[in-house]
Amino acid sequence: MARINENYYKLAAGYLFPEIARRTRVFLEKNPGIKIMRLGIGNTTEPLTPSVINGLHTGVEKLASVDMYTGYGDEQGDTRLREALKSQYADLDVNLDVSEIFVSDGAKPDSGNIQSIFGQDNIIAVQDPAYPVYVDTNVIAGRTGNFNKAKGLYDGIVYMPCTEDNGFFSPVPDQKVDIIYLCSPNNPTGTVATIEQLKTFVDYARQNKAVIIFDAAYSAFIKDNHLPKSIFQIEGAEECALEINSFSKIAGFTGVRLGWTIVPKALVVENTESGKINALWNRRQCTFFNGASNIVQEGGLAALSDEGVNECQGLINYYMNNAQIIKYGLMEIGIKVFGGDNAPYIWMKTPDNMSSWEFFDKLLTETHVVGTPGSGFGPSGEGYFRLSSFGHNEDILSAVNSIKQNLDI
Amino acid sequence: MARINENYYKLAAGYLFPEIARRTRVFLEKNPGIKIMRLGIGNTTEPLTPSVINGLHTGVEKLASVDMYTGYGDEQGDTRLREALKSQYADLDVNLDVSEIFVSDGAKPDSGNIQSIFGQDNIIAVQDPAYPVYVDTNVIAGRTGNFNKAKGLYDGIVYMPCTEDNGFFSPVPDQKVDIIYLCSPNNPTGTVATIEQLKTFVDYARQNKAVIIFDAAYSAFIKDNHLPKSIFQIEGAEECALEINSFSKIAGFTGVRLGWTIVPKALVVENTESGKINALWNRRQCTFFNGASNIVQEGGLAALSDEGVNECQGLINYYMNNAQIIKYGLMEIGIKVFGGDNAPYIWMKTPDNMSSWEFFDKLLTETHVVGTPGSGFGPSGEGYFRLSSFGHNEDILSAVNSIKQNLDI
Repeated sequence: MARINENYYKLAAGYLFPEIARRTRVFLEKNPGIKIMRLGIGNTTEPLTPSVINGLHTGVEKLASVDMYTGYGDEQGDTRLREALKSQYADLDVNLDVSEIFVSDGAKPDSGNIQSIFGQDNIIAVQDPAYPVYVDTNVIAGRTGNFNKAKGLYDGIVYMPCTEDNGFFSPVPDQKVDIIYLCSPNNPTGTVATIEQLKTFVDYARQNKAVIIFDAAYSAFIKDNHLPKSIFQIEGAEECALEINSFSKIAGFTGVRLGWTIVPKALVVENTESGKINALWNRRQCTFFNGASNIVQEGGLAALSDEGVNECQGLINYYMNNAQIIKYGLMEIGIKVFGGDNAPYIWMKTPDNMSSWEFFDKLLTETHVVGTPGSGFGPSGEGYFRLSSFGHNEDILSAVNSIKQNLDI
Repeated sequence: MARINENYYKLAAGYLFPEIARRTRVFLEKNPGIKIMRLGIGNTTEPLTPSVINGLHTGVEKLASVDMYTGYGDEQGDTRLREALKSQYADLDVNLDVSEIFVSDGAKPDSGNIQSIFGQDNIIAVQDPAYPVYVDTNVIAGRTGNFNKAKGLYDGIVYMPCTEDNGFFSPVPDQKVDIIYLCSPNNPTGTVATIEQLKTFVDYARQNKAVIIFDAAYSAFIKDNHLPKSIFQIEGAEECALEINSFSKIAGFTGVRLGWTIVPKALVVENTESGKINALWNRRQCTFFNGASNIVQEGGLAALSDEGVNECQGLINYYMNNAQIIKYGLMEIGIKVFGGDNAPYIWMKTPDNMSSWEFFDKLLTETHVVGTPGSGFGPSGEGYFRLSSFGHNEDILSAVNSIKQNLDI
């Protein structure tokens, strides 16, 4: 008799974004014809840039030619693309070997799958609030207890509260943990960790032989040159950290699907020699994955060309302009806001201490704007709300105007 | 102190195909300039067809347009593509709901990941020989004991020997198992299960409440209309089976990456209500996966158009012609061969009872042809060798001629 993975029963509720989609659909069914303004999911809206489009067409055209057709590529990615990524890191004074760079179909799969190379008995620590994938994939893997409804968290996971008091970056855990997820620029709070802040975690990880899983998917939005774009800008991080990144937000590849993960050879854990964690991820990818699409990788390569980087900076600037519009629009009506300067997310405190989902429904009903309830990212997100700057400029302006005019606070 | 997933230590050796690549590389380093003829990996070599190329270009062009740009799509796939797949199944008299069809980035990820929705204590049965991903992913997930070197198999897995005596399709297990991997047309043996043969497994699975994971990635190569292309052509299979398939071999998408999995709502296991397994796979995909590339899905849609299907049939015919050349070429020199009629693989008995890897080295050294050692697919593959018909026709002819002229048997 086949039995299911019962860890799935522990999952608190539907994955956050499908639940948002469901509530929005219900609202639209009851209120047909109303135009919804979506500032919920961090989903890009602007067309790909000309050189990226050219790169993708080239990728397609190659497959039409008997001489240039390629089938299965390396599971680790096209060497040209890995070289281009290596060179991008070199600009940050981070020196990598191409064998430390694994191209994938996105940061979400990598941040979900990475836990599988670690044992079941590791203690996981997450920033609270955090991208739900870190927690949910560990629940499914059986590294947690049940969901504690009263506390809004899973037993067995160490939550590191990121609150207004600590500038949304928690101190290191006061207990021993084994695997630490950090995201900077942070999703959802829009805050960016400083070199000094990251160093506290690198020091902790080295002392406790813990591993940091660093999600840098929003690093391209950092304007302030003093802020680190990669954890490997912190001394010693290569011994205790791996890093996940994506073309989704840099180049508008949310639907195109391309990302990468850096697993340094120097990264070691208990009883493993140098290179072992790198080899494990390699084995994982060779067994469960068959490489990112060859067409898509050509697009990624174009995005990393000089022309591509310049054009994509235009996309980043576009969304960051939106972020400022949201931030200052909300401030005008007295809402307390965070983030939005070096990150595409605005993290706002709900008015009148409303719960996050209460505010979701209020915002949708009164202003027709969809955002993301902070509590969906962890218990410390309760009472907060995330607005995303990914959207057409005119829609962002309409949404902010609608909030300013129609939100009854 | 972080600890690794120690199940990785149980893995017998490198994944089969990287090991083939490594031996080939070593040979080339010692013998520079020699032209290798690759009949090893089942890797497509012929250009994509015109309507598929058009579809892919359309996919790219949409992303250049502010009106047609799309970001994150549904994790389950584009509804148009799911509808087209549904209609393809309808032609086989298999009626599906679109919610039972999950589009993915390929059959390998799906056949690797599918085990994760089932509990750790399920007993796994595999055909022997079989595609290594079924076994390796269950080893990594911890469902097996150690690799037993003497027997060439993992403790705790039920191997179902597929031998010349049973026509390379084993009878049902004589013990209770929970999850059964079946592949037809079979990789590596090239044999196709009949309706009656599959029915024995469907009956077994329904009696024992087991689940069949049916890999139909090569179904497009079936010419004989009496042979089933989908397990759902067997009565009652929807209660006990799910099915994985791919555009890799149908449309030449090995590098493009597109596949799908059917999880019927009617599929139930112990203590689950109707729809539960479907919901579990949906939750898995929503948590770990972010949808197949929107560009690639446009290509898949074009491949399923009337024109696309006709053109892709030309690709299938091309490779099947190759299969016949290999098959009859080997027969001419007295080698015993199987498969190759309704599948792109030729399964040959090694001459003089050589081991599979011995024959790999002999074939490479004497004829410069790379094939796949049967023992890499399981202990019953020992003494057999797989040749793939994926290759340019002229290369297949050269390879077969080289074998006929240079193989010293």
